[in-house]
Amino acid sequence: MSDTPKQLKLGLFIQSTGHHAAAWRHPETATLQSHNVHYYQQLAKTAERGKFDLLFLADDLAVPLPYKSALTDRYGKLEPLTLLSNLAAVTEHIGLAATFSTTFNEPYHAARKFASLDHISDGRAAWNVVTSALNDEAHNFGQDEILDHELRYERADEFFQVASGLWDSWDEDAVQADKESGEYFDLDKVHVLNHQGTFFSVQGPLNVARPVQGRPVIIQAGSSGTGQQFAAKNADVVFTVQNHLDSAKKFYQQVKELAETHGRSRDDIKILPGLFPIIGDTQEEAEANYQQLQQLVDRKIGTALLGGVLDNIDLSGYADDEPFPELQEAGGTRSRFQLVMETARREGLTVREVYLRFASARGHLTVIGTPEQIADQMELWLREGAADGFNIMPPYMPGGLDIFVEKVIPVLQQRGLFRTEYEGGTLRENLGLRRPASRYARQESGVDV
Amino acid sequence: MSDTPKQLKLGLFIQSTGHHAAAWRHPETATLQSHNVHYYQQLAKTAERGKFDLLFLADDLAVPLPYKSALTDRYGKLEPLTLLSNLAAVTEHIGLAATFSTTFNEPYHAARKFASLDHISDGRAAWNVVTSALNDEAHNFGQDEILDHELRYERADEFFQVASGLWDSWDEDAVQADKESGEYFDLDKVHVLNHQGTFFSVQGPLNVARPVQGRPVIIQAGSSGTGQQFAAKNADVVFTVQNHLDSAKKFYQQVKELAETHGRSRDDIKILPGLFPIIGDTQEEAEANYQQLQQLVDRKIGTALLGGVLDNIDLSGYADDEPFPELQEAGGTRSRFQLVMETARREGLTVREVYLRFASARGHLTVIGTPEQIADQMELWLREGAADGFNIMPPYMPGGLDIFVEKVIPVLQQRGLFRTEYEGGTLRENLGLRRPASRYARQESGVDV
Repeated sequence: MSDTPKQLKLGLFIQSTGHHAAAWRHPETATLQSHNVHYYQQLAKTAERGKFDLLFLADDLAVPLPYKSALTDRYGKLEPLTLLSNLAAVTEHIGLAATFSTTFNEPYHAARKFASLDHISDGRAAWNVVTSALNDEAHNFGQDEILDHELRYERADEFFQVASGLWDSWDEDAVQADKESGEYFDLDKVHVLNHQGTFFSVQGPLNVARPVQGRPVIIQAGSSGTGQQFAAKNADVVFTVQNHLDSAKKFYQQVKELAETHGRSRDDIKILPGLFPIIGDTQEEAEANYQQLQQLVDRKIGTALLGGVLDNIDLSGYADDEPFPELQEAGGTRSRFQLVMETARREGLTVREVYLRFASARGHLTVIGTPEQIADQMELWLREGAADGFNIMPPYMPGGLDIFVEKVIPVLQQRGLFRTEYEGGTLRENLGLRRPASRYARQESGVDV
Repeated sequence: MSDTPKQLKLGLFIQSTGHHAAAWRHPETATLQSHNVHYYQQLAKTAERGKFDLLFLADDLAVPLPYKSALTDRYGKLEPLTLLSNLAAVTEHIGLAATFSTTFNEPYHAARKFASLDHISDGRAAWNVVTSALNDEAHNFGQDEILDHELRYERADEFFQVASGLWDSWDEDAVQADKESGEYFDLDKVHVLNHQGTFFSVQGPLNVARPVQGRPVIIQAGSSGTGQQFAAKNADVVFTVQNHLDSAKKFYQQVKELAETHGRSRDDIKILPGLFPIIGDTQEEAEANYQQLQQLVDRKIGTALLGGVLDNIDLSGYADDEPFPELQEAGGTRSRFQLVMETARREGLTVREVYLRFASARGHLTVIGTPEQIADQMELWLREGAADGFNIMPPYMPGGLDIFVEKVIPVLQQRGLFRTEYEGGTLRENLGLRRPASRYARQESGVDV
């Protein structure tokens, strides 16, 4: 490993029949796939054939009612943790990343489920730590409106500390299982957490052994200031929305420096922007493939989706061809809002151009071109220090994933930018991340690992 | 089906390396199996070869600290829902039943996860609805002590009503997915629940389609009065602790009659006592197999386990050979307490005899004998109206399960008491249970299904 040049890390972001809002209308996608486990099994096997580091599932805890006229296959689907545990049975190497909200859950449940998934997958679990931002989510959990952004992140922070503490409950050698003497546990090696905090009081110990990876891989996907702080302190992987090389470099630099202020190394945190690839054998074919999808976007769905991104602003009153209006954000905290406004301003886009842009990649980097052109962009961002890899968002699936694996991956491999075999047994090993020591091991040895 | 005689329904109750407290010390059990997914996969495949209706996983949300000296492999293991979802990938027919507490969870999460498991398994999910009874569990969820028994059941009742309502969120034909017109949902067929109750307020709709079975199979496993009421109203299957034919008949009769008072038929609810089988080719060999396990029970572990069953009574001060003392229950609500006291009184048992009895089958029906003798007992209980089947609790595993499948199942099949092939595609079909209609379908048709 030490002599090879820096390589890309790749995630596959699975989103029902694809990331494009009109994916389900694409002639090549099958209907009713969002609840079909065999469909997801096929995607997972294809991604593993392509040597992807991990596959990633987003999550929400509600059907967003204000946008019900825009509901498609992405608003009803299998629950991530049950799905990933199933996919663990039909794959061997690929990492399994589930989004799991800290806002309407309990850390004991989270710690248990991710520890369990890590054992079930033999060290391939990852947790995308998020907060829930929709009022519709609050309404499903007995609350009138969603917690304030800062409070949500405070809760997330404590939630994560508790879960991490619970994962250390059992030392690696806590189980003696001595049939002769009848001693099962070495009780000195089973730790009670006794956490008493602002949001949680949790006794422990966890009733699951320490995860195979010590701790599942921790992913953070918010790009707000508090999100970046959480990531810099806790995350192994950052997913981010970037669509411009300079801003991406700035973000990359910022997060790495922030990680250093927390005593971590720059390599301890991998930054993976989303990448929405539209592939063709020629540039013209790729453009045509893009237009084919864009023409399937209904104005009603496009404006509703964009309105959701923009903190629930109603865009139905704006005409398609007028310049995108200067909107004011109510809360002032959502990083995606700023991204939309900056993009519209910088490129002078109309209302329709903006909603079409967001209906496809939702603000993520879009590359439309040949496999070599896609690889060029990925290489550029890697070499320029804008990314450690990408979270690949196929516009439609399985077709868009198949093409990526068959045509783009080999180009990356030929350039020495991507693995041809998995390096390790666990996701941490494949990502080149250290296995965290238990907090109790640290105390005993006096070594700060 | 209509001409065949009444047949047994069988569950496999999986408990780490076996139900006997000393199973992990048995010479044939492997160590460290509680976190080994391949071990569980093997059990599931064997049970499916034996045509079991379902496999069942118990659950707790804590390591019980007052009994920490008695902790063995059953207090740390994989989380049931993640495990079952994995087992769905390596099996095709067997039902997958997870215990899931209503005390420290939210109905939206429960509804989602069980709906998801039901889709993933193509209609094989079952939910054992329980309340959490340990203070150690309360301590992991920010509470000083566990809710009062009646309040827990009130919460469970409302929890279940909410989950059931959420499962009906989508009509079967809510998804149009009309690629041509661009209409995905028929929104008239997606229902908002708007539940406002004592414990929960939940808006809905669920973000998972209606379960394949309409509703997962509902299991209830408490035998207290409130437990029986809940079962009579809501459960498809009742697991119960019975070790005496007459009491079992009384319980069976009582639950069936109670179900009728709720407008249900006697066949709508299947009663499955636990059965702890110790099998030998001769009666003497079976007895020897039993003694081999009993001799591995440590006094410390035996008294602690029994103390836990008896509402946390400390038994360490009583000598092994004294007659079992007349104890008073503090709360007065745990059905298991009465069972222990009645058994000790009826049979005039010593302290050691009682803890050994509970260290093996924890009060469940124990049958020690040849495959024919085991089958005789099962047939007797079926014909006498004491059981619709059994939840089989192998003393050690996989050995104790393998023998049951190889030797007892064929006897039952020869007698026409058990299936030789699965009857249906879903767990409901195999259990002979109806698929519940959606509450919204009922309203429209005016038919009370």
